[in-house]
Amino acid sequence: MKFGVLGTGMVGEAIADRLASLGHEVRMGARDPGNPKARAWAAQTGGRASAGAFADAAAFGEVVFHCARGSAAIEVLRAAGRENLRGKVLVDVSNPLEFPPGAPPKLFTAAAGDSLAERIQAELPEVRVVKALNTVTASLMGHPEKLSGETDVFVAGNDGPAKAKVTELLREFGWKSVLDLGDLTAARGMEAYLLLWLRFSAALKTAQLNIQVVR
Amino acid sequence: MKFGVLGTGMVGEAIADRLASLGHEVRMGARDPGNPKARAWAAQTGGRASAGAFADAAAFGEVVFHCARGSAAIEVLRAAGRENLRGKVLVDVSNPLEFPPGAPPKLFTAAAGDSLAERIQAELPEVRVVKALNTVTASLMGHPEKLSGETDVFVAGNDGPAKAKVTELLREFGWKSVLDLGDLTAARGMEAYLLLWLRFSAALKTAQLNIQVVR
Repeated sequence: MKFGVLGTGMVGEAIADRLASLGHEVRMGARDPGNPKARAWAAQTGGRASAGAFADAAAFGEVVFHCARGSAAIEVLRAAGRENLRGKVLVDVSNPLEFPPGAPPKLFTAAAGDSLAERIQAELPEVRVVKALNTVTASLMGHPEKLSGETDVFVAGNDGPAKAKVTELLREFGWKSVLDLGDLTAARGMEAYLLLWLRFSAALKTAQLNIQVVR
Repeated sequence: MKFGVLGTGMVGEAIADRLASLGHEVRMGARDPGNPKARAWAAQTGGRASAGAFADAAAFGEVVFHCARGSAAIEVLRAAGRENLRGKVLVDVSNPLEFPPGAPPKLFTAAAGDSLAERIQAELPEVRVVKALNTVTASLMGHPEKLSGETDVFVAGNDGPAKAKVTELLREFGWKSVLDLGDLTAARGMEAYLLLWLRFSAALKTAQLNIQVVR
């Protein structure tokens, strides 16, 4: 299958690597079509990997991953282009974090009480937004087996078939438990959890962690 | 040991029951000292259980649990009385949830980006506030063995010995893993997690759930 990956940071690279390793065709998109990180990634990965502008990656993918940082999301998606994304599944992996100097990290969505995923959906109503994987660090997104036990990941979105497609993909990534948390307002909880995740990470001195929901 | 429990709802009763079952002396406090629920609880529990006004419970306890609903917290603690709480450990079990009609629950602290526990600490600077147990439903707070596997609870606070005392108490309750998340700003994460917890609960159709942090 063909995937577009928007973003060349740790998250974009982790998702693009995992998709390529599973045999998919992946185009990594950057603001600048000549972005050296994206070019280097495509060259190293070989065969079915390519690089281009955000719009190239969005046009290429049947499913598109938004892997830019949260504060750039709307701008990146505008660059990707409404027509290039129309009707497609857009997996939003980002978090609305801001890091005020000398204070704990905050959610820039907090005052409004909504979520970044909902803002993306409002910006692109004809796109099928699914929130997923924002609750784990980049290196675990495609490799849950790195943890010592079973853990859960979550999907939220307003389009059932889109969530089913992303759930299937998460299973390809190795996630055995994918919990559907309902419509896209559930992204409020998935994003707010980052405030707790950051404290877990500080207390345990590692980002290699995730949660298992136990009944 | 002597405990005060502020609140006669499901949370107050669950905490008071568990403390009493462990042989502690417990006074349950209510707005009205003749509150029939508190009186009935004390009568049913017998021996070392008693009931009174918020101020009576606060004066009685060496450690005091705040188990009222979050929106009432400051008012309840004012009624409990600054002098009755001075220097004591106050365990804040509450959540700053509000339930706007026709919309998902929100945190009433969201716009300011702080936490209810910090607001309580600011209101009562001479009290040693520890945030704990707000991440599980009332019936699990004192009975983690009701779940099918090991899970974690968390403490946050600015006073190390106060956190150590609460951690010891949580172990008495049966919690094997109590993770110290640092100073009281960690309550922001512990409270924000409720937005995710509510979606877990809706998806799994039960409140009998908790998370295990896996590395």
